[in-house]
Amino acid sequence: MQSIQKLKSANSAGKFVCVGLDTDPLKLPSHLSSFNNPVVEFNRTIIEATKESAAAYKLNLAFYESEGIDGLKNLEETLSFIPKEILTIADGKRGDIGNTSSLYAKSIYEHFDFDSATLNPYMGKDSLEPFLSYTSKINFILALTSNPGSADFQKQQMKGGKYLYQCVIEKIHDWNKNLNCGIVFGATNINELKENLAVIKDLPLLIPGVGAQGGSLEDITRILFSGNKSSFLINVSRGIIQKSLGEDFAEAAKNELATLNKIISRNLQLKN
Amino acid sequence: MQSIQKLKSANSAGKFVCVGLDTDPLKLPSHLSSFNNPVVEFNRTIIEATKESAAAYKLNLAFYESEGIDGLKNLEETLSFIPKEILTIADGKRGDIGNTSSLYAKSIYEHFDFDSATLNPYMGKDSLEPFLSYTSKINFILALTSNPGSADFQKQQMKGGKYLYQCVIEKIHDWNKNLNCGIVFGATNINELKENLAVIKDLPLLIPGVGAQGGSLEDITRILFSGNKSSFLINVSRGIIQKSLGEDFAEAAKNELATLNKIISRNLQLKN
Repeated sequence: MQSIQKLKSANSAGKFVCVGLDTDPLKLPSHLSSFNNPVVEFNRTIIEATKESAAAYKLNLAFYESEGIDGLKNLEETLSFIPKEILTIADGKRGDIGNTSSLYAKSIYEHFDFDSATLNPYMGKDSLEPFLSYTSKINFILALTSNPGSADFQKQQMKGGKYLYQCVIEKIHDWNKNLNCGIVFGATNINELKENLAVIKDLPLLIPGVGAQGGSLEDITRILFSGNKSSFLINVSRGIIQKSLGEDFAEAAKNELATLNKIISRNLQLKN
Repeated sequence: MQSIQKLKSANSAGKFVCVGLDTDPLKLPSHLSSFNNPVVEFNRTIIEATKESAAAYKLNLAFYESEGIDGLKNLEETLSFIPKEILTIADGKRGDIGNTSSLYAKSIYEHFDFDSATLNPYMGKDSLEPFLSYTSKINFILALTSNPGSADFQKQQMKGGKYLYQCVIEKIHDWNKNLNCGIVFGATNINELKENLAVIKDLPLLIPGVGAQGGSLEDITRILFSGNKSSFLINVSRGIIQKSLGEDFAEAAKNELATLNKIISRNLQLKN
């Protein structure tokens, strides 16, 4: 199935929450230490508990790579637990010159067979082209991120009056010949989201920053639904998977996801 | 030894060429196929042939990660062949939110014990802080890259008239409290290099793009020496390690490095 179809199917079913599997080996429920591989057991259980109502799973590559060879094995095994119809996102924010970018794309889209990836636009079009050539995937390119450092460059004004992140979004429209681009837009930037719906147009959105980073799910969904925006994912990582660090961690994750989905469905009904 | 000392020692000895170990398993001399691990044998032989006159070794992480678990083993083994007094650079162009960036920094600077890394500035200061907190390392942050896509954003003018890459360099000076920042400045941007020596000041430079990408070593070194710039590395990857794809690959790499060093030393003498 094309990645964009997976996203649209989830959204049509009222599922908009992407579960971020930023699994920190040092922050696992202590009872899992009796398992052969606590990280994999944690991920397996979280996926099992959330797969009915998750719109997507985002795997933050740093959390796996930083564990070296064992981490990559955990990444592969975790991916095997995710039902084929649910979108997977490799969150690595890659961007490099052409021949290097090709290797990253091959690793993410062929070796690991992710449905989509996050990318960094700083090096321009040719640095992303190897990813853009995979027509069945979704390339979520950083536009405006959720962290304080987004003020350093992304929110700086360009000569023509636009902000850098707006110029990035405009370029992404140019690069979107295969209709396989999306953008990353941080949930902490509520006003910018509201003001840029017409700039974003129909680009799918990946929205991190709800929860631990301070973004409001209520505000985000109200703006997006009132703007008739479809095709978006709101990522929540720690807010779901670390909701409880006790034996009830999976139940707590499931309940938190249900709570988030209830807020979303209320705003979706308000709009209809 | 502090990483900056390794760089300065190399430069003081007239060594400015960084050998890029972008080792492509599909482009190895065919006779190496009889070895148990051709990539590692290739890297070991290249390092052995060039270590007397290389200023540094840059390992492009994509070339290793894209081979999955075996690739990471190759990365570790390759690092073990590099003499401790020679600077090592992890070329991964990382940049992410704080807790993720910490993991990348830990992986590169602790697990693999690299001396330095390349970083992407798009997400701003807090995305790089975990790297900047390693005071004995060198953080080479992308300013102006060597690829055509550098025109998309890096060479766009900001409201005040400066170009984005100049604003990035200015910010890097602010972030350089630990004197552990450097910049990446592509060799294809000769005019920009000439015009920005006063903006770059004493930041160490990592200069890719000579050779396969079209930058001129002659021009680059003439500008840098005439500007009294010390502390820089000119990276050459394919131009050295793929100089010959025959049984004489190591000899050819050694000879090419000697040729490059001759050009540099001629320009160094012209200046003195």
